[in-house]
Amino acid sequence: MIIREGRTFSSVPSLFDHMVEIDTTRLRETFETYSSIGQTDNDGLHRLTLSEEDARVRDQFVSDLEQLGLEVRIDEIGNIFGRREGQSPDAAPVLVGSHLDSQPYGGRFDGQLGVLTALEALRTFEDEEIKHERPIEIVNWTNEEGSRFKPALMGSGTFVGEFSVDKTLAETDADGVTVEEALEAIGYRGDESCEPREEIHSYLELHVEQGPILEDNEVAVGIVDGIYGMAWLEATVHGESDHAGPSPVYSRQDALVAAADVVLNVRRLSSRVADDVVTTVGELEVGPGSINVVPSSAEFTVDVRSYDDDAVAELVSCVENELDAACARENTTYDLEEIWRITHTEFSSVVRESALEAANVLNIPHQQMIGGAGHDASYLNEITDAGMLFVPSVDGKTHNEAEYTEWSDVIGGAKVFTETMRRLAS
Amino acid sequence: MIIREGRTFSSVPSLFDHMVEIDTTRLRETFETYSSIGQTDNDGLHRLTLSEEDARVRDQFVSDLEQLGLEVRIDEIGNIFGRREGQSPDAAPVLVGSHLDSQPYGGRFDGQLGVLTALEALRTFEDEEIKHERPIEIVNWTNEEGSRFKPALMGSGTFVGEFSVDKTLAETDADGVTVEEALEAIGYRGDESCEPREEIHSYLELHVEQGPILEDNEVAVGIVDGIYGMAWLEATVHGESDHAGPSPVYSRQDALVAAADVVLNVRRLSSRVADDVVTTVGELEVGPGSINVVPSSAEFTVDVRSYDDDAVAELVSCVENELDAACARENTTYDLEEIWRITHTEFSSVVRESALEAANVLNIPHQQMIGGAGHDASYLNEITDAGMLFVPSVDGKTHNEAEYTEWSDVIGGAKVFTETMRRLAS
Repeated sequence: MIIREGRTFSSVPSLFDHMVEIDTTRLRETFETYSSIGQTDNDGLHRLTLSEEDARVRDQFVSDLEQLGLEVRIDEIGNIFGRREGQSPDAAPVLVGSHLDSQPYGGRFDGQLGVLTALEALRTFEDEEIKHERPIEIVNWTNEEGSRFKPALMGSGTFVGEFSVDKTLAETDADGVTVEEALEAIGYRGDESCEPREEIHSYLELHVEQGPILEDNEVAVGIVDGIYGMAWLEATVHGESDHAGPSPVYSRQDALVAAADVVLNVRRLSSRVADDVVTTVGELEVGPGSINVVPSSAEFTVDVRSYDDDAVAELVSCVENELDAACARENTTYDLEEIWRITHTEFSSVVRESALEAANVLNIPHQQMIGGAGHDASYLNEITDAGMLFVPSVDGKTHNEAEYTEWSDVIGGAKVFTETMRRLAS
Repeated sequence: MIIREGRTFSSVPSLFDHMVEIDTTRLRETFETYSSIGQTDNDGLHRLTLSEEDARVRDQFVSDLEQLGLEVRIDEIGNIFGRREGQSPDAAPVLVGSHLDSQPYGGRFDGQLGVLTALEALRTFEDEEIKHERPIEIVNWTNEEGSRFKPALMGSGTFVGEFSVDKTLAETDADGVTVEEALEAIGYRGDESCEPREEIHSYLELHVEQGPILEDNEVAVGIVDGIYGMAWLEATVHGESDHAGPSPVYSRQDALVAAADVVLNVRRLSSRVADDVVTTVGELEVGPGSINVVPSSAEFTVDVRSYDDDAVAELVSCVENELDAACARENTTYDLEEIWRITHTEFSSVVRESALEAANVLNIPHQQMIGGAGHDASYLNEITDAGMLFVPSVDGKTHNEAEYTEWSDVIGGAKVFTETMRRLAS
């Protein structure tokens, strides 16, 4: 993690007559309402993309947009947009939002907080009759997480043309259900073409940091300079099943032994090649999976990240070397597929400067930083001036039901977000 | 694997006027019929205990027993018995058989061959009007494999009193279905009490070797002196889920990294403490199992075997040491449960001598040996004189759809089996 700048406390004059005051009680109530949809026993969220729980939270979101008088559009892969007109309806709009889907057992803040902060900002603009030049559109991107369907960032990636609509609709989950079938099952296959229908002025997204930096530095808001690049790999080791008793060890071709060898060596590759490299094996499945049978197959994933794209590329070859070595030791073979690669993102200075000014005007402690997690803003950055705000994650925990952000930090982030949005739209 | 004696070719006079000739064509046809029930695309078997496929093969078996005029009994945990009376109906019976359930993707020979060899022997006795003093009972034991419900050898273990009937009926599969529910669902919860209703004279079981020794020595039949002892362990490593990007490696508590560490060290424990120790991790499940989430849990099994019971006990503590060390390295915790332990078996000299005489009379190449796999005969040995015959496994492969035994070896084994059964029953 690279910290670009320490805490900044300074004051700059506001552009506007008065400061916009968000309704923090309403924001919290809305957050609680949304958090009850797909809530787990441990106060986390189980809201896999395009699931029944996702359908319910989408219904809530669409209803809230309509109640606010926004023009709602749903595109062919389920991205939901709500438009508030500006004083110049033909001006390029400002896009704001995040995602409402969750990890299998994720927290309440990841994604959802960004959507609801944007919703609260728009509600405040409506209540306070805030004038703004540009239209503002709020968005909920389909399948940010990539837990049910791969790749992650599917909605934004398709929107910017990184993936074709046909490819996206044909992606399947573990049960063989396609994105298209899942969209139709929950009634969110919209009519709109999945692409920008006009030039977009800028994109702004608030998100939890998902790491420990802001908390360690006691800073409420991170203004994000950029995002790590990453690669996702899927490996399958092919061995030979055999009886755990009478088959001698010398003749075994144990797919799990080879895979375990790779798992340990992938961990050792963290911080290699470049200081900031992180590597993770998050999934591993063993076949046939019987206590007294030598495993014949082991499928696993590898996630590699760094701000240095060359380091990511080099790490991918390191993983291949580890597979070669481990499979040679165990007399097994393997397949390795790179299922996703995204280069590092350097966000637009336009959004970053607006956010810095907003944080300074509001006198909220903030810092510039690099993000380690992938975000829809990375793809949006390919077609417009994009930027992000982070709020702290307690203990840096995320993708975990215990994920938490202090409410005072949420409010700080929401204030900077609202002020930044106002500046971008003016 | 310990080889007690090399190949033996000698001739002893028969006890009987003429040799019994089994119908090898009928045996093969019966084998093909049974192999079509639960047959996989790769000519293996998918016939998990108490499944719909198991129900169909049980129906076939019961119908074949009835057609042969045997008295059929089904006990309260689904063990199926068929009785052919002897000339002394009150004499203690000889019990013969094996199991018809399979691994998730197992072969056609494991278990099934022993049941069908016993069936062919009884059919031959009926056709040739062979006289024998003792009653002969054929048996199909419920859940030998332990793939769907644990522990393995459930039917025989309950029959000999190793497990209580209540405990067995309450065991659950991965979907939470109990043995009792599964028995009722397929209509095989019988009325008979699951226990010996009289003294049993002896137990004889033919099985595939599931290892490479007989094939390597070019011997058709193994006369089994004993069976390895074994322990089954279930371990769960508890870590903390976290984001694969922004969470720094130093703070991770990755359950899979710790489990992989144990998997590799468990492999290194093979052949330690005693020469014949074999260790296997056959199952491993990762939670939550998402590509960009640090695993919070890893559940896996360990199978430890040796002919030396002290070595098994020592290995179990070695596995615990490995868990201690791996979890300390990764800041994780673990639970470890020993779900099954069986001491080594030394089979009865009564059955072994009869089998040796039979093989010598028939002049079929044979050797004495120790078996590495668990078998129902081990439990039967606790209450009667038990013994086993092995036939070769091509390439030693088993628990694998490619499992194979040359038909000439099947015939050799079936002949020795029939002759041994005749001697035991006389």
